Amino acid sequence: MRVTVLAGGVGGARFVKGLRGALGADDEITVVVNTGDDLWLSGVRLQPDIDSILYALAGVNDTERGWGRAGETERVSAELQAWGAGWPWFTLGDLDLGTHLARTGWLREGLTPSQIAERLGARWPIGVRLLPMTDAEVDTHVVVEGGAHLHFQEWWTRHRASLPAVAFENPGIGDAAPGAGVVEAITGADVVVLAPSNPVVSIGPILKVPGILDALHGARRVVGISPIIGGKVVRGMADACLPAIGVETSADAVARHYGRRADGGVLDTWLVAEEDAALAPALAADGWDVRVEPLWLSAPEESAALARAAITP
Amino acid sequence: MRVTVLAGGVGGARFVKGLRGALGADDEITVVVNTGDDLWLSGVRLQPDIDSILYALAGVNDTERGWGRAGETERVSAELQAWGAGWPWFTLGDLDLGTHLARTGWLREGLTPSQIAERLGARWPIGVRLLPMTDAEVDTHVVVEGGAHLHFQEWWTRHRASLPAVAFENPGIGDAAPGAGVVEAITGADVVVLAPSNPVVSIGPILKVPGILDALHGARRVVGISPIIGGKVVRGMADACLPAIGVETSADAVARHYGRRADGGVLDTWLVAEEDAALAPALAADGWDVRVEPLWLSAPEESAALARAAITP
Repeated sequence: MRVTVLAGGVGGARFVKGLRGALGADDEITVVVNTGDDLWLSGVRLQPDIDSILYALAGVNDTERGWGRAGETERVSAELQAWGAGWPWFTLGDLDLGTHLARTGWLREGLTPSQIAERLGARWPIGVRLLPMTDAEVDTHVVVEGGAHLHFQEWWTRHRASLPAVAFENPGIGDAAPGAGVVEAITGADVVVLAPSNPVVSIGPILKVPGILDALHGARRVVGISPIIGGKVVRGMADACLPAIGVETSADAVARHYGRRADGGVLDTWLVAEEDAALAPALAADGWDVRVEPLWLSAPEESAALARAAITP
Repeated sequence: MRVTVLAGGVGGARFVKGLRGALGADDEITVVVNTGDDLWLSGVRLQPDIDSILYALAGVNDTERGWGRAGETERVSAELQAWGAGWPWFTLGDLDLGTHLARTGWLREGLTPSQIAERLGARWPIGVRLLPMTDAEVDTHVVVEGGAHLHFQEWWTRHRASLPAVAFENPGIGDAAPGAGVVEAITGADVVVLAPSNPVVSIGPILKVPGILDALHGARRVVGISPIIGGKVVRGMADACLPAIGVETSADAVARHYGRRADGGVLDTWLVAEEDAALAPALAADGWDVRVEPLWLSAPEESAALARAAITP
């Protein structure tokens, strides 16, 4: 079976890990990863979502802290702060920095982000193909009340998404092309899954890359998993993002935001949490194939069960 | 008193530290530093000679190992090796990498190497102004027997200068300009000192920057210190470099290579070691102001005594 997942960082990583546990050695998993979180920091290129998924699949991630590498130190970051360089509110782990430097060196040698993702994915037997959504630099910018434009990471990490956002932009994305293999991974899959990632800043940029929406329209089957459980965001700060695009923080509002493929949207099936079962009838009445499932990803067996539910026709 | 030193890395650092110890708070020391050793590594800009002098003057250098920062670790470097990135034979210390990343970020922001050297010099009260010889990228390349061209660091660090060199080149140096303040530091000094650094790959590139030779010709007084003691190189591998420019590894051959200012060269005075006292009469007979002094820089008081001897009219 061939499964392609569209995903952001931490939530995407947990889901994909569950999917890998649910599938066998003959199955193929491809993850199209958001690159809107990417940034240049002190001349070094960071791709946080790709790295989060990579580390989680390799089992080298810090599960207590929830991000970065296990056994991490921050010696270089402390030096950067002593120099007054970089972003003092953005901590670079030393092990993580090794990845960023390898990537930056390869970019300088002329490799594309798609080629680099392939190299990164080859270090550990992760059993999953990671594809950046695009090779273009289309970092997400946030327009906040008052009109200032911030890089997504500044808004998210420095201000903890506390400045009210009025818009999210990806400058240049109108001219971007899908990363190598992305369109084929979507149109060639038995099922495409929208991971329970942030609909605005994780899945949103992926859908904005010209060609990806068309690929989804041509896919065999597209399933989405609600990132909202019981009317609440369970990871990240999607509730700080959804208002900017006029979407309520609820499982049905996010579904209607993505839309049914039959109506020109991207989804055939929508998985809502048991806590949101009451929202299912209204969606079903509007023609949705809506399914009620446990959506928690706290334990590996939960993630695997959810993955099984998502790929079941 | 105003003293300007032309210097490479480790030998230059020791001499300058001695000079700082010999002079008072009202004296001004400027060091014009070789940038031929500079390199790009995994997208990061390294300037080893500037950093060596900076760390030594700040007292944060590793005195046992002879290079880099004290208390250094190599976590990032180990990761780079695991990724198969960078140069496996070139170790980047984590603390040192903090300097390189700060520099690289500032370069990316549009600062010049001269401006960056000023920032770097401001972290610790080093009491010395560090000026890169040029803001242009003129990394030294080595042509070895057989015709291959290697970056200086590859020849020096990877091959330990074991491949016979036939030429040293600094591509683009003909179009380079002296770094900010370099010409003024040379022409405005009471005395200019050529540190006992490698004549070919440390002092050599500095003299090749258009405008610096003219500045030396217009200087008040120029003193050179032999890097050769008793016919032997005491630091580094100058004996692997001198043959490529047709100069013998001896204190008098290096003096004649630099030349007397009265003959169109760069020196007024040449300091040779007590071990080379026998060479002095022939140089004196040719009109040289040659002085015999202890040239060892092993202890701070030795370096200070040598510095005092160098600046004595």
